[in-house]
Parts: sequence; C-alpha cells; structure tokens
Amino acid sequence: MIERDDISDALRLTVITDPDCGAGRSITEVVAAALEGGARCIQLRAKESTAREMVALGRKLRELTLGAGALLIVNDRLDVALAIGADGVHLGDDDLPVGAVRRAVPPGLLIGRSADSEDIARTAERDGADYLGVGPIFPTTSKPDAGAAAGIGLIERIVAATRLPVVGIGGIEPESAADIVRAGAAGVAVIRAVMCAGDPAVATADFLAATDPAALAR
Amino acid sequence: MIERDDISDALRLTVITDPDCGAGRSITEVVAAALEGGARCIQLRAKESTAREMVALGRKLRELTLGAGALLIVNDRLDVALAIGADGVHLGDDDLPVGAVRRAVPPGLLIGRSADSEDIARTAERDGADYLGVGPIFPTTSKPDAGAAAGIGLIERIVAATRLPVVGIGGIEPESAADIVRAGAAGVAVIRAVMCAGDPAVATADFLAATDPAALAR
Repeated sequence: MIERDDISDALRLTVITDPDCGAGRSITEVVAAALEGGARCIQLRAKESTAREMVALGRKLRELTLGAGALLIVNDRLDVALAIGADGVHLGDDDLPVGAVRRAVPPGLLIGRSADSEDIARTAERDGADYLGVGPIFPTTSKPDAGAAAGIGLIERIVAATRLPVVGIGGIEPESAADIVRAGAAGVAVIRAVMCAGDPAVATADFLAATDPAALAR
Repeated sequence: MIERDDISDALRLTVITDPDCGAGRSITEVVAAALEGGARCIQLRAKESTAREMVALGRKLRELTLGAGALLIVNDRLDVALAIGADGVHLGDDDLPVGAVRRAVPPGLLIGRSADSEDIARTAERDGADYLGVGPIFPTTSKPDAGAAAGIGLIERIVAATRLPVVGIGGIEPESAADIVRAGAAGVAVIRAVMCAGDPAVATADFLAATDPAALAR
C-alpha cells in the first residue's frame, strides 16, 4: 500500500483507462501490462458506463493494483471509489466539490482535482485536495470536451501557485513528459499513449524513464 | 429526524423530483409545497444533471426536509447523498450493488432498491436494503425506460417474498394508491402526480389521506 506522503512518486505516471481505446484488448489486460511496466497509479475513467459496470471493472483493477502496490483512483464517482475500496477520487468542474468530499469521506482517501487556472488550484488546495491534474497541456483527442491546449507555461504557473503535486495531462508523449517534470510537475497522466500503445508495458516504462527525477537531474 | 424504525410511515408517500416537470416552478418550490402538504419522504432524482448540479439542488432540499422532519433520499448517486448529508440512497439495476453500499457507508444510511421480481427483492433484503421500490405498477410516462406495467399483483408477490417495506411506483393516482396499500405496500412513490399537480400541497395531502392505514382499516 502506498502511503499518502509517497504519492508524488506514484504520480510520475497516471495511466487513465478509456473504454474507447482497447484495440481488441480488455482494459484489465492493458492495465496489467502497464503495472508490469512499472505504473504505480491507475485511474479508472469510464464516463459512458453505469455505476454497476464501473464497480465490476473497478474490482478487477483493485485486485491488480493491490497486487502491484499501485494506487487506484476513480474518476468522478466517489461512490464507486468507496464501493471498490479505491485509494482516491479525481474530480473535475462538473463533479462533486472537493470540500464536500473531504468532509464526507475518511481522511485517508486521496482527492485529485482538475485545474486549468491558478484560482481553481488554490481553491482545491484550500478545500483539501491532495494533487492537481493540470491541462490540457497539448492538443488531445481522448477528451473531446477538454479546452484549448495551454502549453507547459500552465504547469509553471500552477506549480508556483500551490504546494500540491501537479500532474500534467493532455497529448503528452515521453519526450514532452520530461519537459513537464522539468517545469515542476510530479508527473504526467496519459490515456491513449499507454492504452493504445502497441506494447503498453514498454510505453509505461518509457514514460517512467522520462519522468525519473534522478535521471532528469543528471 | 426520522428514526430508521419509523420509515414505513414516512414511506406512505415518496415525492420524486423530476427536472422535466416543473411547470414553471422551481423544484425547490414544489418540494416545499409537498412538505407543506405533509410529505415525509423526498427523493432527489436528476438523471440528466451533473454531480455538481445535484449537490447544489440537494443542499436546498436537505435544508427544506430537515426543517420539515422529512427523509431525503438520493436516486443513484451515493456520493451526492454523502456530500449533502442525505438520509439514504435509492439504487436500481444499473446502480451500485446494495451489498457494496452497505459495506461502504455508515450503518444509519437508508438503502432503497428498485425491484420488479421476487428474486431481486430477496437479494436486496439479504444484502441489507431497507425498503423496496416496486413497479411500474401502472403505465407511466415519467420514466421511459421502465418496463411494462406489472399491476398490483406484483406488490402482493413481493410483499409475500420479503419483510421489507414496499413502495409501489408507476402511474399511481390517489385512488390506486389506496389499492396498493391494501395489497400490503407501505406506500407509493410518485413523480408527475405531485411535481406537475396544479397544487402540489393538495395533491400530496390527497395521497397521504389515501394511504393512511387507519383510514383504510375503517
């Protein structure tokens, strides 16, 4: 089990699931490969699924992530997170307010918040969020409703505005992942770059190598 | 605050909100009128709303229901129920499993389960549900995905199959509400019959009169 203090290391790479991106493989197969490649944070995202379907998939991912000592975060649905014993929940603008979740759940549950401005980042920190997802940094096709690409400058501004670990998201490849960590982020979150990779384990390892603080310091 | 033992009385009438049925009045206005008419159970149902929107509306309904000593139940979204401090959650086939919710939440939280068969009713009772919503009894336009009308016989079969309080739902008017209670139900749940009523307080009072066990015994 990853302690809350250690989340920055786990956040070097968040692999977000996506039901539209299985390329003939099941989500659990791709997640298993990502964990084999070293991923320590998986986010269950399934906007089109029912809660019942999310619980069924989430239970499998919980077993895999516990086996690998990895975090499991659930996008949006705190109730699904509680039902499957996930480590946390990731909240966006349309989801539950961070403060309401912080008051309603056990202290150990991690809360991530999407933030595309310093204001949202500061409010999330004040309300009890544990980390921030910041983006979209580059253009992305995974999330059609994401806003215009903000560039790496957004990482720098939000890192300066809060003390929370920051995760860059949106169209990130291993090369740009290194730039994002150099800009002060704890890591990156990806969907297609791992879920649709020819070899998800190799893709995961590439991202982890690119976001290794020790390697970047050399 | 209504004690869990007393829910059968509160369940004489559940008024379910519906965003498509305001007739120019806000949902909070109609709920306030229903509470004034004597309703003791309100269910927040807002399938098309975001979690954020449900929390905003739910907080207003929580204030109104606490003021009236009424239960507030949230349809589907346990996370919203927890965030607003609701009394319970109502779960259907696509929602979280009853057992998973029972294990994940404080013992006092009420769990309702939609049931259109004895099997589902028995499983819900075994898994820790507190009451059953049974229907559709009559044809309904409020819930287009509801199955074919089952008739009052379904109430009798499910009342015989479990010890849980049963609430009939689906196209119910005050006249048929009395028949449903005579068949063994604790009460009825309605959407349009109160939300779209010319005078929601009067409509509520009519249902409560029709489902009064003392009056029916006479």
